[in-house]
Amino acid sequence: MTALRIGVCGNGTVGGGTIEMLQSRAALLEARAGCPVVLTRVGARRDRDDCPVQDVPVERDLLAVARADDVDVVVECIGGTTLARELTELALNNGKAVVTANKALIAEHGNELLALAEAKGVSLLFEAAVAGGIPILKALRDGMAGNHVSGVSGIINGTGNFILTEMESGKRAFDDVLAQAQELGYAEADPSFDIDGIDAAHKLTILASMAFAMPLDFASVHCEGIGTVTPEDIQFAGELGYRIKHLGIARSSEQGVELRVHPTLLPNDALLANVDGVLNAVRLEGDCAGPTVYSGAGAGRLPTASAVVADIIDIARAGGNVVSSLGVPVASLEPVTSLAMSEVRCPWYLRLKAQDKPGVMSRLASCLGAEGISIEALIQKPPVGNDETVSVVVLTNAAREGDLRRAMAAIGSMDEVSDAPHGIRVDSP
Amino acid sequence: MTALRIGVCGNGTVGGGTIEMLQSRAALLEARAGCPVVLTRVGARRDRDDCPVQDVPVERDLLAVARADDVDVVVECIGGTTLARELTELALNNGKAVVTANKALIAEHGNELLALAEAKGVSLLFEAAVAGGIPILKALRDGMAGNHVSGVSGIINGTGNFILTEMESGKRAFDDVLAQAQELGYAEADPSFDIDGIDAAHKLTILASMAFAMPLDFASVHCEGIGTVTPEDIQFAGELGYRIKHLGIARSSEQGVELRVHPTLLPNDALLANVDGVLNAVRLEGDCAGPTVYSGAGAGRLPTASAVVADIIDIARAGGNVVSSLGVPVASLEPVTSLAMSEVRCPWYLRLKAQDKPGVMSRLASCLGAEGISIEALIQKPPVGNDETVSVVVLTNAAREGDLRRAMAAIGSMDEVSDAPHGIRVDSP
Repeated sequence: MTALRIGVCGNGTVGGGTIEMLQSRAALLEARAGCPVVLTRVGARRDRDDCPVQDVPVERDLLAVARADDVDVVVECIGGTTLARELTELALNNGKAVVTANKALIAEHGNELLALAEAKGVSLLFEAAVAGGIPILKALRDGMAGNHVSGVSGIINGTGNFILTEMESGKRAFDDVLAQAQELGYAEADPSFDIDGIDAAHKLTILASMAFAMPLDFASVHCEGIGTVTPEDIQFAGELGYRIKHLGIARSSEQGVELRVHPTLLPNDALLANVDGVLNAVRLEGDCAGPTVYSGAGAGRLPTASAVVADIIDIARAGGNVVSSLGVPVASLEPVTSLAMSEVRCPWYLRLKAQDKPGVMSRLASCLGAEGISIEALIQKPPVGNDETVSVVVLTNAAREGDLRRAMAAIGSMDEVSDAPHGIRVDSP
Repeated sequence: MTALRIGVCGNGTVGGGTIEMLQSRAALLEARAGCPVVLTRVGARRDRDDCPVQDVPVERDLLAVARADDVDVVVECIGGTTLARELTELALNNGKAVVTANKALIAEHGNELLALAEAKGVSLLFEAAVAGGIPILKALRDGMAGNHVSGVSGIINGTGNFILTEMESGKRAFDDVLAQAQELGYAEADPSFDIDGIDAAHKLTILASMAFAMPLDFASVHCEGIGTVTPEDIQFAGELGYRIKHLGIARSSEQGVELRVHPTLLPNDALLANVDGVLNAVRLEGDCAGPTVYSGAGAGRLPTASAVVADIIDIARAGGNVVSSLGVPVASLEPVTSLAMSEVRCPWYLRLKAQDKPGVMSRLASCLGAEGISIEALIQKPPVGNDETVSVVVLTNAAREGDLRRAMAAIGSMDEVSDAPHGIRVDSP
């Protein structure tokens, strides 16, 4: 059998893990792939002590890997969207398959890259780009292949989930836990990609494209971070039977497709609500399979490399055939109507400070009632010390977001209410 | 593109669901498969009102489907291991691919059938045989392809999980809930396959074969049912921070492979512990991916059909190539040493009745200590009414089962203990 020859570009976390896997288990990979899987080139600007490379030429010019005659599959683990894009295009143009862990690259430039791969008749796979070691893209593409998928939701950023979990268990503030996450190496020095939800939005873009057979549409993702969640929110949510998670949610209905990333209240007994720490989990809603949930390590050296290697084996098993990236040809992807956030319907959690006077609750309920929004639960906390205001927490029934925003504005302008209410969406799948 | 022509044998739950899916979504299946997927034959001894068949010849002789010139893939949904085996062999011998949901067939005759399929150069797939709508076999075969898998454990019988869940939530006895499960159609008139663990053992056999690249070895599965679990056990387990689930567990170590199905205490915070009702869930332990958990509907008409159709699409996408059943060639499967249950190590929960006298606890602890078993927790319940005996619950640290059995015998022969202790294994993955 002809060997499948691999060139890995990047020797950081994912690249290093991939190199380690390829060099440590040749027999297992050959048995599973049906042919030898051989690392023939590494592209790295500098050597790293934590990534020893045995008997393989290391190119300082990463693009050389995409030109090398002895490489069939280029593994792109350099990150970013500039050189990574150039490398990927060069490899595809040279007739090489590409495996990448780069969610930004696929979410932002995937349509062009997928079309190029298809035109060149080579595979472009990116299981590692979403939810690390969880084979969620294969589950969507292969396991759910016979289903109309109506929804995908998930905890797809481990850093954010770690922070929310620690805020809850330690009753600690966001900034405090973020500093700890940075010390532990879970969060970057510039943590905005994780905590503002950009990283999750990239992943959701990919999941939605596969779930709904739509082009990658990162620009349509509504994205909110977790920086506004307070320990009080977590506590009040708990009293109502909910936990707060940072979710990516993609839903398809006759009205259009919703793509949104935001903090979300989930009922305690939802499987996603019980996924803690740096773990990831994704829930798929198929019309025949029903809901299925997938959880595991969403990041890390070897979990992510596990996904890269699974893609390499996919390519090996297909022999000379192209492995479909999304399960359908790129040309068949159909643009969909993106639902405006004002049209999205869900229950809401609202928290506000109000003066402790008779009639306030009634006026508050009227503001919601005027927009046709009914109240599922209402908690009024007793004033603390000499504070003359009380915290009020409201859980609404499902409401159109445009209506809810108007009600929130009306509540915020009540004399007895100091600031605009703080709102968090609720998901009860 | 040449159409892939499907013959479905059996029009009951799974066959009916498959026929429904094939006839209701031709465009979706063609897009995902890359070619038309067409139902060309149905094999059914009699028509059923809940399974309308449109414009397709129905054969009363099921074997005729395996002989038909216009069938490329035979879907075996007739159940049992006699005619189903004959049908499968005939189809494979005639060069047709086979997709089956029949766990007994694969667990008991899979080695011969897989060898036959390989010899004939056709695919034999059975995603639907394990955990219904959850694509767990594809996750193992494809998603974990780069991993050494050391363990698979799961809730793989929905009937049993429904019964345990209801016993817990309603504080009801086993027989009572079983009768309800039969009324609801979750349990068969003869429920022994489900509640004695045979069904789970079939599924575990398949999971283990794929996880450890070993031949199917149903005979080596140690199998215990849930009929011995009492409401007291569930309550005491809860007090200790555990829930009781009927698990299939397969583990591989240097000592050998453990294959076992039995009631199991799981810590409350384990993801599997929070899978309730008729849901299934499976946990895979890969050396690189780490633990991943997959949950969803483990049975039912459309969830199971979803898995059948996913296998059909797998075959279509492979063009003329064979889709590997286990991810490695059958000839490469290596028999493994099966670990005797006496050698299996795990913590244990023990429950017994003892006279309420001084010194009893100390003698009980001595029986365990004599076998080198230490105690993690011990609860003594106060006597109820005029009862002179108390219930005692012990949680041990991990112990070799042979040692534990000797300690249980010694405890059972104590003067102050009325019956042999009742023991349940604990899993804390």
